[in-house]
Amino acid sequence: MNLAVTVAEIRHFLREQFPQTSIEVESVDAQGAWVRQAIGHAHLRPGGTVSGPTMMATADCAAYVVLLSRIGLVPLAVTTQLSINFLRKPAADRDIRAHASLLKLGKRLAVAEIRLYSEGGEAPVAHAVATYAIPPR
Amino acid sequence: MNLAVTVAEIRHFLREQFPQTSIEVESVDAQGAWVRQAIGHAHLRPGGTVSGPTMMATADCAAYVVLLSRIGLVPLAVTTQLSINFLRKPAADRDIRAHASLLKLGKRLAVAEIRLYSEGGEAPVAHAVATYAIPPR
Amino acid sequence: MNLAVTVAEIRHFLREQFPQTSIEVESVDAQGAWVRQAIGHAHLRPGGTVSGPTMMATADCAAYVVLLSRIGLVPLAVTTQLSINFLRKPAADRDIRAHASLLKLGKRLAVAEIRLYSEGGEAPVAHAVATYAIPPR
Amino acid sequence: MNLAVTVAEIRHFLREQFPQTSIEVESVDAQGAWVRQAIGHAHLRPGGTVSGPTMMATADCAAYVVLLSRIGLVPLAVTTQLSINFLRKPAADRDIRAHASLLKLGKRLAVAEIRLYSEGGEAPVAHAVATYAIPPR
Repeated sequence: MNLAVTVAEIRHFLREQFPQTSIEVESVDAQGAWVRQAIGHAHLRPGGTVSGPTMMATADCAAYVVLLSRIGLVPLAVTTQLSINFLRKPAADRDIRAHASLLKLGKRLAVAEIRLYSEGGEAPVAHAVATYAIPPR
Repeated sequence: MNLAVTVAEIRHFLREQFPQTSIEVESVDAQGAWVRQAIGHAHLRPGGTVSGPTMMATADCAAYVVLLSRIGLVPLAVTTQLSINFLRKPAADRDIRAHASLLKLGKRLAVAEIRLYSEGGEAPVAHAVATYAIPPR
Repeated sequence: MNLAVTVAEIRHFLREQFPQTSIEVESVDAQGAWVRQAIGHAHLRPGGTVSGPTMMATADCAAYVVLLSRIGLVPLAVTTQLSINFLRKPAADRDIRAHASLLKLGKRLAVAEIRLYSEGGEAPVAHAVATYAIPPR
Repeated sequence: MNLAVTVAEIRHFLREQFPQTSIEVESVDAQGAWVRQAIGHAHLRPGGTVSGPTMMATADCAAYVVLLSRIGLVPLAVTTQLSINFLRKPAADRDIRAHASLLKLGKRLAVAEIRLYSEGGEAPVAHAVATYAIPPR
């Protein structure tokens, strides 16, 4: 699959469209996209671990980035479904990195699989599947 | 079902354990719990609507509150799975309210159903199901 | 909401389109649809309980029936996503009954919620959410 | 990871415990398990394709097989959650093959990822994630 846009274009688009996010796009290639959420106090929860909503937001962003990389900078692609399994306790002092790849890219629906890791860890801390509705072009 | 704690105790617990959240507990009774997320610029996304992660965080919190109301203030109950369907575009200028009820309360696992609404709307903007692992007591 | 077809028309349609199914349509009204799977030896699994696939098939059928009742007898509506939580052990000697209602009926996607019961039981044995893609009309 | 049992032992166990199933275990190794469902008239649905329940049953079985291969022949491990996305139309005249691998193997919960294919196809026709509760040993 060819990429529809460069990683620089995606970064610029996210900064404009989602100025409040602190998730960074690391890389995008034919296999998928990597994003990173730096973890600070606001992302933690009791037990010294990263909160579920932080991981859900990172998974959703990773899926959006891989989708944009294939269909171009379409602001109105929206998540219709997201399912996440929390597998292991993430480290409180490490960034969360997420890798998303596309299971399906149809005309109307795309489905992405996302794996989340604490930086440096080999086993995923969470696994998600997200569906996006693609507006008619 | 009897409540294990009062709504005031849950509010106090959430403020201590999750000082960064702006989600408020509205009410808790035998049928479930209502929570509210005030919507500001930080919660919006392109298209003039509430972001998916904002709704996922609100759903997760509502499920946590209804669980706490039944089992008491257990900080180490953790979400193991959350699945959400986004159904309708939420209003950008209205709070998100979420109602959670328990489908199951076992010794080790609890399952909650959550419906999210734009304040004043009758049709849910999202529907979620969340599973919590309950630590041994 | 008005029904697009009668329960007799749905039964006839299912018998023609899915001659191998033993699931019966009990009733359909504005609130949703009830279906029933008679439980025999082929539906059981070790531990003296109803198998997961039997419940998934019943949930999927209930969702299909409630969708057909609203959009008419469209054979090409297909499930795109189904998520099920198994909540309690079903009785091995009772039928499974499932109730489906629509959370959303859009032009392209419908989302149904399904609750499954062992006949006569009050607490659901499983809870499912299913998404259907509706072909252009 | 070492296997707790051989593929022959798993086949024997499934034949005894689930005599009604026609799903075959193809192989099990450290990376996961392959199973196969031969497709006949009973597995088809309108539109000339494999029914959703057939694919859900195959996904559930594949997850069960990979779990048994790691924990041994435990008949009371039960599915607590299964989520499936139907991605592409399966071929009506080809077997369904499913590959399951474990995302997590904990003491109480295991999570498996499953990909389903029409025999000979490269792109998955469905993708599932299943959670199993493991009885105390």
